[in-house]
Amino acid sequence: MEKTIAVLPGDGIGPEVTEAAVKVLKSIAMRYGHTFHWKFAAIGGAAVDEFGSPLPKETVEACEASDAILLGAVGGPKWDNNPAEQRPEKGLLNIRKHFDLFANVRPVKAVPALLGSSPLKEEIAREVDMVIVRELTGGLYFGEPKRHNENSAVDTLVYTRTEIERIVDQAFEMARSRRGKLASVDKANVLESSKLWRKVVEERKAGYPDVEVEHMLVDSAAMKLITNPRAFDVLVTENMFGDILSDEASVITGSLGMLPSASIRSDGFGLYEPVHGSAPDIAGQNKANPSAAMLSAAMMLRQSFGMDSEASSIEDAVMSVLEDGYCTGDLSACGNKVISTERFVEKVIEE
Amino acid sequence: MEKTIAVLPGDGIGPEVTEAAVKVLKSIAMRYGHTFHWKFAAIGGAAVDEFGSPLPKETVEACEASDAILLGAVGGPKWDNNPAEQRPEKGLLNIRKHFDLFANVRPVKAVPALLGSSPLKEEIAREVDMVIVRELTGGLYFGEPKRHNENSAVDTLVYTRTEIERIVDQAFEMARSRRGKLASVDKANVLESSKLWRKVVEERKAGYPDVEVEHMLVDSAAMKLITNPRAFDVLVTENMFGDILSDEASVITGSLGMLPSASIRSDGFGLYEPVHGSAPDIAGQNKANPSAAMLSAAMMLRQSFGMDSEASSIEDAVMSVLEDGYCTGDLSACGNKVISTERFVEKVIEE
Ligand SMILES: CC(C)[C@H](C(=O)O)[C@@H](O)C(=O)O
Ligand SMILES: CC(C)[C@H](C(=O)O)[C@@H](O)C(=O)O
Repeated sequence: MEKTIAVLPGDGIGPEVTEAAVKVLKSIAMRYGHTFHWKFAAIGGAAVDEFGSPLPKETVEACEASDAILLGAVGGPKWDNNPAEQRPEKGLLNIRKHFDLFANVRPVKAVPALLGSSPLKEEIAREVDMVIVRELTGGLYFGEPKRHNENSAVDTLVYTRTEIERIVDQAFEMARSRRGKLASVDKANVLESSKLWRKVVEERKAGYPDVEVEHMLVDSAAMKLITNPRAFDVLVTENMFGDILSDEASVITGSLGMLPSASIRSDGFGLYEPVHGSAPDIAGQNKANPSAAMLSAAMMLRQSFGMDSEASSIEDAVMSVLEDGYCTGDLSACGNKVISTERFVEKVIEE
Repeated sequence: MEKTIAVLPGDGIGPEVTEAAVKVLKSIAMRYGHTFHWKFAAIGGAAVDEFGSPLPKETVEACEASDAILLGAVGGPKWDNNPAEQRPEKGLLNIRKHFDLFANVRPVKAVPALLGSSPLKEEIAREVDMVIVRELTGGLYFGEPKRHNENSAVDTLVYTRTEIERIVDQAFEMARSRRGKLASVDKANVLESSKLWRKVVEERKAGYPDVEVEHMLVDSAAMKLITNPRAFDVLVTENMFGDILSDEASVITGSLGMLPSASIRSDGFGLYEPVHGSAPDIAGQNKANPSAAMLSAAMMLRQSFGMDSEASSIEDAVMSVLEDGYCTGDLSACGNKVISTERFVEKVIEE
C-alpha cells in the first residue's frame, strides 16, 4: 500500500519520540512492502516561533494532503504567557476542529512489567483493559457565548443530537468489538445536555443488542476509576468530562509513558499522538520513553490504514522489549535496564 | 450556649447515622453544659413521599429557625424515575441555593487504621491531609439558559467576580489556618470562566502573603490526586470540577465512610452532612458506619458554633474507637472487630 503521513513533531520531547515512531514505521514499510510518504510540518510552540501561529496554513495543507497525522506533543513554559491565539495548545484545538476529529479514543491497558509503578495497589490495577471514548469537538470547548470581562464570565455547553449520536455510535461499535460493555458517563441529575445525551444512548442501544449499557454519573465514574477500574470496558462521555476522566485513567496503571491516543472522524482519517505531554524538562536528553509514540503509530496503522498485523508487530515488539526489563531514563518507565531513547528504538526494531 | 439544630435525616441510612450523630451531640451538651434544641424535618425522597416535594416549605422554615443544619443522606432507586422536580437530589440543590451555601468544604485525611482499604499503595495514601473547597451555588449547576429539546441541549457556565471572590477568600483563609498552600484548579487554557477565576486568585493573593498559590489545570489535578495526593493542602475550584475532584479524592484514603462535609456561607450558618450516600442496600440493618455523620456534627460544632474542644472530643473519640479495631458491618470501615451501628455509637460516647 501507498500512504502519505503528516508528521507534526511539536515541542519538548515531541521531536525525539516522533522520530522514533517514524523509524519504526520505516522498518514496517520495508518488511511489509508498503510505501509511506512523509510530510513534516510545524505545530504548537515550534510553529508559533517559526510562523507566528500554533497551526500555520502550511501545516493544515500538509495534513489535508495526507492519509493520517502523527503528532508528538505541544506546549512548554516558553509560551505560557502568550496571548490565547498564540499558545501551543490552540494548535491542537484548531486542528481537531478543522478536521472534525470528533472522537478521541484512548486505550488504557495494564502492562504487567510496569504495575510496580502504578499508584494503585497491584490487585486493583492488574488486568485493567479499557478504552475511553471522548467527544472532542463540542461542549464547553467551543460553545458560544464564551467570553469574560472584569465582572463576569460565561462558557456554554452545547450539544446537538447529531453530535451526540455519532460519538455514541462510535463507542457502541468499539464495545461490540471488545467485551460488549459500555459505560455512558454524564451528569443527568444536573445538566440538560446530559439528559439529551442519556436519551440518545437509550435510543441507539436498540441497534446494539449485543452491548450491555450502563449510565453512570461523572462523580461516581471518577471514584470507580480508582476503586474498581477493571469494571470498565468502553467508557463514553462528553468533551470536558472526557478530558478529566481520561487523564485520571491514564495514571492508574503506571503506564502513562506507554499510552497512545487517536482523534478520528468517521471516514477513517485521524490524528495519532501520545497521551503524555511535551516534558520540556527532559527534552533533547535522549532519555524520553518513545513507547507511546510508537504505539500511536501502531494505532494509526490499524485504524486509519487497516494494517492489522503491521500494528500488532509494533505492539508486540514494544511489549517484549519492556518485558525484557529495558526502559528509558524518564520516570514513567521502570524496568531495571535503563537505556537511551535511541537504543530503545533499535531494540524495538530488532524485535 | 443555647443552639437550635435542624436535623434532616433523609433517605436510606440517613436516619440511622443522623440518630447516631444526635446521640453524640446530646452527650456533648450534657458534658459541656450546652442546650441544644432540635427541629426534625423531612428532605429528599422521604419528603417527596410525605409532602410531595423534596424540600417542603416546612423544612425550609425549620432550617430558617435554626443555627445550623445536620443532614443524613438523600436518594434511592425508589425515586429514580421521578420527574426532575420530585427527585431527592433536587432537595439538596434547592437547600444550597435557598440558604446561599456557597462554600462546600471537604477534608480528606488518611486514617492509619483504614489505610489497608485504600485502593492506593499505602506509601502514597499515607499522611494525606487536604481540604477541598468547592464553589457550590454557581457555574453549570444554575446558569441560564439551561434546557434541551429533541435536537439540541444547552447548559451555561456563568460566574460573577463576586461569586469567585468569596469562595477564593474562603479558601485562602482556610489555607492560612493550615499549611499555607493553596492549589487553585481551573481549565484556563480552554474556559473563559477559568480565565476570570485565575485573575481573581492572582488579585486576592496579595492579601495573603503567607499563602503559597499554585494554579493547576483540572486534568492535571485529576492525575495528581492519585499520583501524589500528599502534595495538596487546600484545593479550591468551581462547582462542577469540585463535584468530580472531591468525589475522586474521597476514595483515595479508603476512609469514605469517615468523611464529613460542610456547606457554609460567610456568616457561619451551614449545612453538615456525610460525604457518603444513602446506601439503600444496607439501610435499616444496624450496620451503617455512623462515623461520617458524627464527624459532620463535630464540624458543625467547630465551624458554626465555635465549640472547638467539643468538636475535638468527638473527633478523638471516633478515632480511638477505630484504632481499637472496631468497625461496623459495611464495606467502608475495616477494623477486625465488627459491631453494630448502635454499639459503635455507645463506644464513641463512652470515650
Ligand atoms: C491542551 C488541552 C487544550 C487539551 C484538552 O483539554 O483537550 C489536552 O488536555 C488534551 O486532553 O488533549
Ligand atoms: C446529588 C448531586 C446533585 C450532588 C452534586 O452534584 O452536587 C452530589 O453529587 C454532591 O456532590 O453533593
